Amino acid sequence: MISSGIFGLDEMVGGGFPENRIILVRGGPGAGKTVFSFQFLVEGAKKREQGLYVTLEEPMNLIKSNLKAFGWDLEGFEKRGLLKLIDESGQVYKPFTPNRYDRGNAKLLITYILGKIKQEVENLGAKRLVIDPITSLVIHQRFPTDKRLEIIELIKALRNLRCTVIITSEATSYIPGKDFFVEEYLADGAVILSKRLRDFNVIKTVLVEKMRGLKHDDQPHRYEISDKGIVIYHTEPVIT
Amino acid sequence: MISSGIFGLDEMVGGGFPENRIILVRGGPGAGKTVFSFQFLVEGAKKREQGLYVTLEEPMNLIKSNLKAFGWDLEGFEKRGLLKLIDESGQVYKPFTPNRYDRGNAKLLITYILGKIKQEVENLGAKRLVIDPITSLVIHQRFPTDKRLEIIELIKALRNLRCTVIITSEATSYIPGKDFFVEEYLADGAVILSKRLRDFNVIKTVLVEKMRGLKHDDQPHRYEISDKGIVIYHTEPVIT
Amino acid sequence: MISSGIFGLDEMVGGGFPENRIILVRGGPGAGKTVFSFQFLVEGAKKREQGLYVTLEEPMNLIKSNLKAFGWDLEGFEKRGLLKLIDESGQVYKPFTPNRYDRGNAKLLITYILGKIKQEVENLGAKRLVIDPITSLVIHQRFPTDKRLEIIELIKALRNLRCTVIITSEATSYIPGKDFFVEEYLADGAVILSKRLRDFNVIKTVLVEKMRGLKHDDQPHRYEISDKGIVIYHTEPVIT
Amino acid sequence: MISSGIFGLDEMVGGGFPENRIILVRGGPGAGKTVFSFQFLVEGAKKREQGLYVTLEEPMNLIKSNLKAFGWDLEGFEKRGLLKLIDESGQVYKPFTPNRYDRGNAKLLITYILGKIKQEVENLGAKRLVIDPITSLVIHQRFPTDKRLEIIELIKALRNLRCTVIITSEATSYIPGKDFFVEEYLADGAVILSKRLRDFNVIKTVLVEKMRGLKHDDQPHRYEISDKGIVIYHTEPVIT
Amino acid sequence: MISSGIFGLDEMVGGGFPENRIILVRGGPGAGKTVFSFQFLVEGAKKREQGLYVTLEEPMNLIKSNLKAFGWDLEGFEKRGLLKLIDESGQVYKPFTPNRYDRGNAKLLITYILGKIKQEVENLGAKRLVIDPITSLVIHQRFPTDKRLEIIELIKALRNLRCTVIITSEATSYIPGKDFFVEEYLADGAVILSKRLRDFNVIKTVLVEKMRGLKHDDQPHRYEISDKGIVIYHTEPVIT
Amino acid sequence: MISSGIFGLDEMVGGGFPENRIILVRGGPGAGKTVFSFQFLVEGAKKREQGLYVTLEEPMNLIKSNLKAFGWDLEGFEKRGLLKLIDESGQVYKPFTPNRYDRGNAKLLITYILGKIKQEVENLGAKRLVIDPITSLVIHQRFPTDKRLEIIELIKALRNLRCTVIITSEATSYIPGKDFFVEEYLADGAVILSKRLRDFNVIKTVLVEKMRGLKHDDQPHRYEISDKGIVIYHTEPVIT
Repeated sequence: MISSGIFGLDEMVGGGFPENRIILVRGGPGAGKTVFSFQFLVEGAKKREQGLYVTLEEPMNLIKSNLKAFGWDLEGFEKRGLLKLIDESGQVYKPFTPNRYDRGNAKLLITYILGKIKQEVENLGAKRLVIDPITSLVIHQRFPTDKRLEIIELIKALRNLRCTVIITSEATSYIPGKDFFVEEYLADGAVILSKRLRDFNVIKTVLVEKMRGLKHDDQPHRYEISDKGIVIYHTEPVIT
Repeated sequence: MISSGIFGLDEMVGGGFPENRIILVRGGPGAGKTVFSFQFLVEGAKKREQGLYVTLEEPMNLIKSNLKAFGWDLEGFEKRGLLKLIDESGQVYKPFTPNRYDRGNAKLLITYILGKIKQEVENLGAKRLVIDPITSLVIHQRFPTDKRLEIIELIKALRNLRCTVIITSEATSYIPGKDFFVEEYLADGAVILSKRLRDFNVIKTVLVEKMRGLKHDDQPHRYEISDKGIVIYHTEPVIT
Repeated sequence: MISSGIFGLDEMVGGGFPENRIILVRGGPGAGKTVFSFQFLVEGAKKREQGLYVTLEEPMNLIKSNLKAFGWDLEGFEKRGLLKLIDESGQVYKPFTPNRYDRGNAKLLITYILGKIKQEVENLGAKRLVIDPITSLVIHQRFPTDKRLEIIELIKALRNLRCTVIITSEATSYIPGKDFFVEEYLADGAVILSKRLRDFNVIKTVLVEKMRGLKHDDQPHRYEISDKGIVIYHTEPVIT
Repeated sequence: MISSGIFGLDEMVGGGFPENRIILVRGGPGAGKTVFSFQFLVEGAKKREQGLYVTLEEPMNLIKSNLKAFGWDLEGFEKRGLLKLIDESGQVYKPFTPNRYDRGNAKLLITYILGKIKQEVENLGAKRLVIDPITSLVIHQRFPTDKRLEIIELIKALRNLRCTVIITSEATSYIPGKDFFVEEYLADGAVILSKRLRDFNVIKTVLVEKMRGLKHDDQPHRYEISDKGIVIYHTEPVIT
Repeated sequence: MISSGIFGLDEMVGGGFPENRIILVRGGPGAGKTVFSFQFLVEGAKKREQGLYVTLEEPMNLIKSNLKAFGWDLEGFEKRGLLKLIDESGQVYKPFTPNRYDRGNAKLLITYILGKIKQEVENLGAKRLVIDPITSLVIHQRFPTDKRLEIIELIKALRNLRCTVIITSEATSYIPGKDFFVEEYLADGAVILSKRLRDFNVIKTVLVEKMRGLKHDDQPHRYEISDKGIVIYHTEPVIT
Repeated sequence: MISSGIFGLDEMVGGGFPENRIILVRGGPGAGKTVFSFQFLVEGAKKREQGLYVTLEEPMNLIKSNLKAFGWDLEGFEKRGLLKLIDESGQVYKPFTPNRYDRGNAKLLITYILGKIKQEVENLGAKRLVIDPITSLVIHQRFPTDKRLEIIELIKALRNLRCTVIITSEATSYIPGKDFFVEEYLADGAVILSKRLRDFNVIKTVLVEKMRGLKHDDQPHRYEISDKGIVIYHTEPVIT
């Protein structure tokens, strides 16, 4: 079992994430997907489990700056070889073929990124891996069926890495359960960070939608992003 | 009549599933479709009815690992020839034709998988068959009308196998009855596993949407995934 | 006037269906469209009115098996020439042209089926005809406008048969009146079998949406599928 | 001012329809669009105003048969030259060009029908004209923008006929005001016949959405189809 | 500041419309867009401000006839050179190119209409201009992005005319704020005339959605179309 | 930290905007996006921080005129080199290639605008930059995936400017959280200005959806557009 590092989450999933599995973290803008990801990696680093973080959208220097408030010694972990941060935010949108809008381009991009990740995981001996966000890898595909096929192959490839992997994914609306995506079916676990407007109040909840092989709490709980990271509250009901 | 193995379900369908029929099990991520499928096969194995399980999406080793918590002696059943587990998760996304996006590819895939299943059913003398999920077989088809035609032919072929067949299918949203799919019309029975948010509570229910030739309970009931598998509650109303 | 055979329905339509007209029966999976159809035919057979049933989706042997519970002497009626059951479930999806996805194929299919039906109606001297479901005949057409044109021609052809015809049609969602289809405008009568979720209860109602030339009850009533067929309740309101 | 013939409607529109204008009657299946149309024509015939009815969808013999219950002496009016009924239900779906799916076909159809109507209106000296339903004339057009252009030209042509014209149009759903169509903008008046489900009751209302140049009642009222035709109730609120 | 002529509207926008600006008036069928437009022009004529009205959809003779009930002396104003009414309802749908469905046609139409308007505004010395409805000018464009581009250029051209301009636009549904259109962003002011069904009552409200450079009442108010034109009520809340 | 200039907003984001970051301001028509933008620039000018404003939709002379009511000395700031206003509303819709509907055109437009902005930011030594609205730059792209790719590249380029940047974006409906757009994910902060109809009242709220690296108030608050600009109210709940 792999401790998640998120305060209050391990209790929800019976002690931690299953080892060598792929966990999806889905949420809207500002939900805290990147904070979640780093809590997971810092938790590992503290336990001397190497972690690799790959950003596919936001530049790494901005991410580092954004995370300063949490007081994590990311550079210290990096120096000690416990954490490696790779910035592929530029590669993702680079045209690999003359016509960047065609499928060949999408294919080459995925091949390139997977190759890079595989190599880094091996060099580092990574036990924890985060890809943030996974949806950037299929941005070139216009048809949902094609996106689906690519995500399937991608996840199959990630399974061979022998890491516990977090992939993040962007919600398309405030309405939970409006649409399911293939990531939610293919990942071994799915954690949903929701914001919902109830009248004119925003209510933030975390829901463990699934967690293969583990009995888990299947009810949503409130959470906040404190200066120590995401904290989940169990002592009170979501609404009273 | 074929006992389903799901605690509380046989009472809902008048004693069990109709023999040699095709039962659809539909549900969202984490609803328990695979657990349902194995409860059905294990129940058979205990009664010395051979069962065949075909995975089209999740790798078999992960499924086995996920099911450990339930304490089923799958390997024992396999050794005694009462259970066979086939992993076609790789085949499904393999391109059979140079352009894997065209219809010919979809056609060859279905022909291949059906041939394989037919052979295995015969070799094993299987009485119970699970295909998990059926939707993977039509993933290459972009148009709903084409998906529909393929599913129709598929189900026609499965009818010739002389097994009781469970096919699983993925829900597209939390909203029950938002859209019906051809599987729900073509299968002989349909069991719907739903998760719904009522305010900020998740409520899980099982509904027998249809069961040809059998009078059945047509109301939803709550269920849980316990460490013995899916358990349906009859003693209390869904909401109070 | 033609008695429908459905318990409680004749009262709703002023005594029975209008003669030589086309009645649409629409419903979701498990709503009872096929049971409705056979109640209509059995009622006729009892009155020595010949009936023809054409299945376009479910194989006939399964239908017969499903209907056993109702105790109707279908074989007896068949022997006495009062009932004929035709299985065209295989023809419907057969490619008539090299490219089964084109319009020519759809056209040939409809021509073939209509020719077959016409001949059988004449041979049998049928007074009652059921086509179950009508939507299978336009499954090859991708565009709604084309589906519409075909259904229009189909219904025009059925008008020449001098039978009272039931055509069944599949609902696309639990939400009644979400979309109207051309069948509802073109048929002379329309009976809607609905399932709706009210909180976590399924409520089944029958609504006579229209019945040309007859004053009819325009309110929904609850119904059940008993071991004698569909029974409509008039003595109580739908919800209390 | 032209009296509508619908019981209770003239009071809603300040005495009757404006002369030589185009009135849209929209409604779902079974709403009573054809009954409305004939009440309008019979009212005229009684006042010695010639009326022309053109059916584009339902065969005339069926319409006549359906209207028998209302006891109108349609044949008497026809004999006295006060009413003419034209059946173009066959023409509408006839291919005018080799490929009936193209725009040329739609164009030729409209030209043909308009020519026919113009000639009949002149021969009869018609003061009242009904086209039922107008939407059949644009059934061949796949794109909404093209449908719109055709309807615009059609209505422009009808304006030259110096008749009071009723055009009927099919609602696409039970939800009133979900979508507006060009007919509602282009017609001089619009009368909406709605069926709505309120819990499990069907409530039928008539709403005068607009009536150019006339002050009109802008609230919905309940109506029924009695054996004298459509009757609108003013004495009670829609819901209590 | 330009007085609007609508009873109760100037109070909502701090005294009147801003000079030489473009005001959008959006509403459904029967909402009173044309009445609004003429109140605006008549108000100007009374103050000796020349006004130009361009109809792009409804023929001018019908509009004049429809407005008779309001008792405005349109002909008197016309004779005195204070009002000019141009009927371009025929031009709009005329094919300018052999294939009227292509973009070139749309382009030529806009060029023609703008040229005409510019010339008439100059000849008349118009201070007030109404184009009713603006959406007719982009009817030939099938893609929303193209419609948007044309509307942008159109509004840019109108800005050079040194008039206060009202453009009308058709709502697509009863649901306010369901979709915003480019006109609402590009116009300097936007007045929304809404009809909404609340249970079975129609409630008509006017909302000033924006009015550049002016503080304005941002709440909806009820209105009626009286025999003097549109009257807005301020003394009571919309619902009680 | 950069003070926003909006009354009551700095308290919501822990003191001000993060430096050198990109903040999205989204809102419907009349929500106050441009007022927000100028409050931000005027605040800067007062503190001797140079600001650059680029309009891509509304002509600059109209904007200036609209802002007069707020009494800001824009010209004074311009003369002192503290503010520069660039009007690119004409360039945006200019065809750069013969066929302005193709991708090449969109590409050239973005390259041109970015080049212009970069140069002006450098010449002015701008610390604050506003692009109003960002969506105009991708108006030529028809497919959402292409829009997304362009926005990603655009934001990447803006990151190199070493300014605090506000980009504005148009809401597509009154329903908050109905759809998320790529801008909301890519920007470092997102401020949402909403109008919502609650029964028949318009309620305007501001919500800080995200603000990278800063703890922020995550609840909506009411705001008004006063004669000093946007004012946010903290002392009362949104609804009582």
